[in-house]
This record gives sequence, C-alpha cells and structure tokens, in this order.
Amino acid sequence: MSIVLVCNHRDPKPWVKAFKNKNPNLDIQVYPDIKDINSVNFAISWQHEHGVFSQFPNLKVIASMGAGVHHILRDKTIPKSIKVTRIVDDNLTKDMADFVLLNCLYGIRNLKFHAQNQLDKHWEIKAYRQPEDIKVGIMGFGVLGKAAAKKLKLNGFMVNSLSKSRKKIEGIKSYIENELDQFLAESQILVCLLPITEDTKAILNHDNLKKLPQNAQVINVARSQHLVEDDLIQLLDDGHLSLACLDVFQTEPLPKDSRLWSHPKVSVTPHVASMTDPDSVVNQILDNFNRMKNNESLKNEVDREKAY
Amino acid sequence: MSIVLVCNHRDPKPWVKAFKNKNPNLDIQVYPDIKDINSVNFAISWQHEHGVFSQFPNLKVIASMGAGVHHILRDKTIPKSIKVTRIVDDNLTKDMADFVLLNCLYGIRNLKFHAQNQLDKHWEIKAYRQPEDIKVGIMGFGVLGKAAAKKLKLNGFMVNSLSKSRKKIEGIKSYIENELDQFLAESQILVCLLPITEDTKAILNHDNLKKLPQNAQVINVARSQHLVEDDLIQLLDDGHLSLACLDVFQTEPLPKDSRLWSHPKVSVTPHVASMTDPDSVVNQILDNFNRMKNNESLKNEVDREKAY
Repeated sequence: MSIVLVCNHRDPKPWVKAFKNKNPNLDIQVYPDIKDINSVNFAISWQHEHGVFSQFPNLKVIASMGAGVHHILRDKTIPKSIKVTRIVDDNLTKDMADFVLLNCLYGIRNLKFHAQNQLDKHWEIKAYRQPEDIKVGIMGFGVLGKAAAKKLKLNGFMVNSLSKSRKKIEGIKSYIENELDQFLAESQILVCLLPITEDTKAILNHDNLKKLPQNAQVINVARSQHLVEDDLIQLLDDGHLSLACLDVFQTEPLPKDSRLWSHPKVSVTPHVASMTDPDSVVNQILDNFNRMKNNESLKNEVDREKAY
Repeated sequence: MSIVLVCNHRDPKPWVKAFKNKNPNLDIQVYPDIKDINSVNFAISWQHEHGVFSQFPNLKVIASMGAGVHHILRDKTIPKSIKVTRIVDDNLTKDMADFVLLNCLYGIRNLKFHAQNQLDKHWEIKAYRQPEDIKVGIMGFGVLGKAAAKKLKLNGFMVNSLSKSRKKIEGIKSYIENELDQFLAESQILVCLLPITEDTKAILNHDNLKKLPQNAQVINVARSQHLVEDDLIQLLDDGHLSLACLDVFQTEPLPKDSRLWSHPKVSVTPHVASMTDPDSVVNQILDNFNRMKNNESLKNEVDREKAY
C-alpha cells in the first residue's frame, strides 16, 4: 500500500520530508514519478489536473492538503466510491483570521494607495480611518468566519455576520439570508468566507456589490466562484468600490493577461491566506491512511453530496 | 490676539474648520496669508520652514499639531522665551499601535514580496510565518512603545522591549541600554519608537542593524534621525535584512531621487503612522490659547532642554 502526492504549484518536498520524519519506511511517491500505479491506495492532493486519478485503479481515498475540497469535488471523473477528506487544523483557522485582519488594516490605513504612490515617487498624505469607525461584514459564519470576527472585534472593528440561521454572539450583529441587502448596505469592508454552493456561486456580482456603501473594500479569501471578476473591476473603475484584496482566482496561477494584476485598486496574493504546514498535519493524514488500511471509518471525511 | 496656522504638506482647511466650529469669532490666520503680523501670539505648527517664526514679534507659544515636537525644537532661530506644546491624545497612541501591528503582519505574511510579484505578474507561493513564532523588539518603551507591545501581544507576537530602566510588564522581556546587543540579536522584527536624543541619533546604523538576525525586518515610525539610510539600504541589498517599513524621512516629502522609493524591500509611507484628527484635539489647543491669554501655565508644555 502506498501514498501518492499530487500537487500543482506547491512544492511536494516539505510534505515528503514531513512524512518520512514520521515513518521512514512509508512508500510515498510524487506524481507524475510513479513506480507502481497499482500499489497506490491513498492520494494527498492539491489542485490536481482533472482526470489524473483515473490512472490509479486501486485508489480508495483522496486527502486534500488543505481545508478546501472543492478542487477535488469539482472533478466529476472521480468515482463516487472514492472517499475524500479535508484537513482540520486550528492553525489554518488562526492564520485565516490573521490574514483577514491584515487586509482590513491594510485597507483603512490606505497601504495600497501609498504603494501606488511609492511607484510614482509621489508623497501624498491621506487621512486614515480607525477600526472603531468601520463595520466589517463577514459573509459565511462557520469556523473561519467566527474566528475572523473574533479577531476583528479584539482589534476594535465593528462586525456584522451573514449566515443561513441567526447566530447569537455577543457584540456581533447577525443577519440571515433574506436580510442580505441590509447586511451589504452596512458593510464598509466585505469579507467573503462562504462555502461554495449553488446559492453562493457568483453572489459577489454587480447587483450585490453595488449595494455596498460608497468606497467599500472587498476581501475574497473563500473561493473564486463567489466573485464575478468583471463586475468587481467595473465597480472599482467607476469609483463605487475603493479596494479589492483577492487571494483566490478562477484560474490559478492567475494568467498573465488578467486585468487584476495591474489594477491600481486590487491587491493580488497567490492563495496564501491560510496554508497547511505539513509538519502540523502529517499525523492526521497518517491516521486516516492507517484507518483505511484497517477498514475503519475516516476522520474529517467530506459528504460529497453536500460538498462540505 | 490671534492664532496662526503654519503647516507644510498638511491641508490647513480641516484645522480652520475645527476651530471655527468651536468658536466662530476666533481670529485664525493661515500662513503665509497674514493680515496683521503683530496680532499673532499663538502658532499651531507642523514642519514649518526654519526662521519663519522670527517675523511674528509678539509670538508666545508654538503648539505642535502632533505628538512630535522635534520639527519645532530643531529650529534654533526660535527664541528660548517662546513656549512649545505637544498634543497628547489617546487616539494618537492607539493609531500608532495599529500601524505597528499592521506592519508586523505585513512582514510575516510577505505582502511586500507579493506586491513586487504582482508588478511582474508573477505567481509565487511563499510560506508565511505566524505571530507566535516571531519576536518583535520594541526600542523605546514610553507611552507609544507600551501600547504597541500590548497590541502585538494581544495578537500572538512575542515582544521584547528596550528602555533606559528595567520595566516589569507581564509577558514582555525587558532589556536595558547596556544589553542592546542581546536585544538586537533576538529581534526578528525591530520597531523603533525611541525619542530623539543625542544617545539615540543614528542608533540604527550598520553595526547595530548587523546584529539583528538574518532576514530581520525594520520598522521606523519614530524619527528619521534614528536611521542611517545608506546603512539600511546596504543591509537590505546584501540580504541581511528582508524588509524595511519606513514612515519618517530625513527630508519630507521624500525627494524624488531617494533610492528608498524604488527599493523592492522598502515600504514607504508618508508620515501617516499616527496623525492628529483636528476635531479631537481642538479643545486642548484652545485651552492652551486661553491659558496663554490669562497668563496661566500651559498643559503638555515641552521641556526645551530635555527635548521631550
């Protein structure tokens, strides 16, 4: 029984090293350099090319390298019999909250404005805003949304949340789905941390983004499918929105011809809001590998119908 | 009796408006548009041109627009009889702490690296660091240094302080002056919040910056005179330092020919770490104006010998 690593745009070496540190005898292979296709039962994957798993006839489990599993689930060539697991890691949650806080401070302290001026060698003082005067609206109030909200509150921001059902958390105003318009109208900074479902696809479209207050900032750290990029660019260009911090994109790496790269009001980061540290998750993946070998139920298995 | 506003690179209009809101009859003039030079007894100033105050024969008080007064004290043409005051404002302290936190997160989450890559339309994932693994060394542990330390601790960073006398604050390791080398050796991020004195001038020189750990980040939000710019640039270029976030400069606005503008490892902000909101300080300035008229002692007067 062996493990295959299938990852694009991520260096597999730290993963191999982390596994070998735990168990030097582990048979771990890095795609596409495979010794024995038939021996592979367990895959660890990040943004694989669609169809790649069909060449492993004895594959039973695909473990995502991160909390996200959409990159696996959207590949409809993967047989339904193959189980999918995700990473659950407190560090991922904390890192996401840090990154959201960073981008909110980055916005209210005008760092993108100053960076553009630095390119032009132009000195221009601009009044900043204080967290206490800013309402941040967090769309999606699962583990990540709650952690981000807590961190923002701790640092003085006002926080509203949007979720399917009403949430009771002290100091945070909870909006539910049919109150979307009011939620948007109050969100001076909008943070998207939604799961991707049929309801949430393209939710950040022209109509909804237009409902944000003038000069609002948009932070998307969830999935690219939430956002209609052309609509966002139009609203940045016509001055309705002041800034977009984007960490996820329809095609990754972001293609050279994307207008986002050079847009003066867009901060592009390469999907780094929250990244798995191999050393901190190797135990939970090996545990599932052993569970698979013993025909035991897996931990953190994903319901492939519900998609979360 | 009248007030004169003397400010370079700051818009005087919000100041005039704030004063007029409090007292519509106030005689407030904006330099160089002066009606009656003899009537001026009180100046409110930010980065005036040296010598400018010598034309006001009846000037008694110069009030700085901010917490800093060095821009006034370094003008040796100002008679010793003229009193100097500073702004003391909790908001200034809080804003500084926010800005320091922002720049620390900016460093550990590689935002300058990603911004440079965005210019090149280059997608490169880079592992980030977590606050819990980073020691921030705060040089200068007055009101601002303590507030920054507290905010950093709250967000997971480890914090060391450097000050003249040993400080006892839970969870913060205190170093004193003769332990500078050890303090520097531990500072993965160095934050300069020192006052400017003969001892602290050019303290951020090649010898001292070289004592920081490899890949350290430097944040200067105090005074430009602390830093030897050429030494900093050399250590950024030879790879010893990874990033400098500079908010203060020997000449402001930073001249077009400064190498700092285009340096890929330097973030330039135009002295905006902490800016006075006129509305929030107009009362304390008017209070001193009235105290002057009544020959009473001033609040927040600066000892011109000690320079703080």
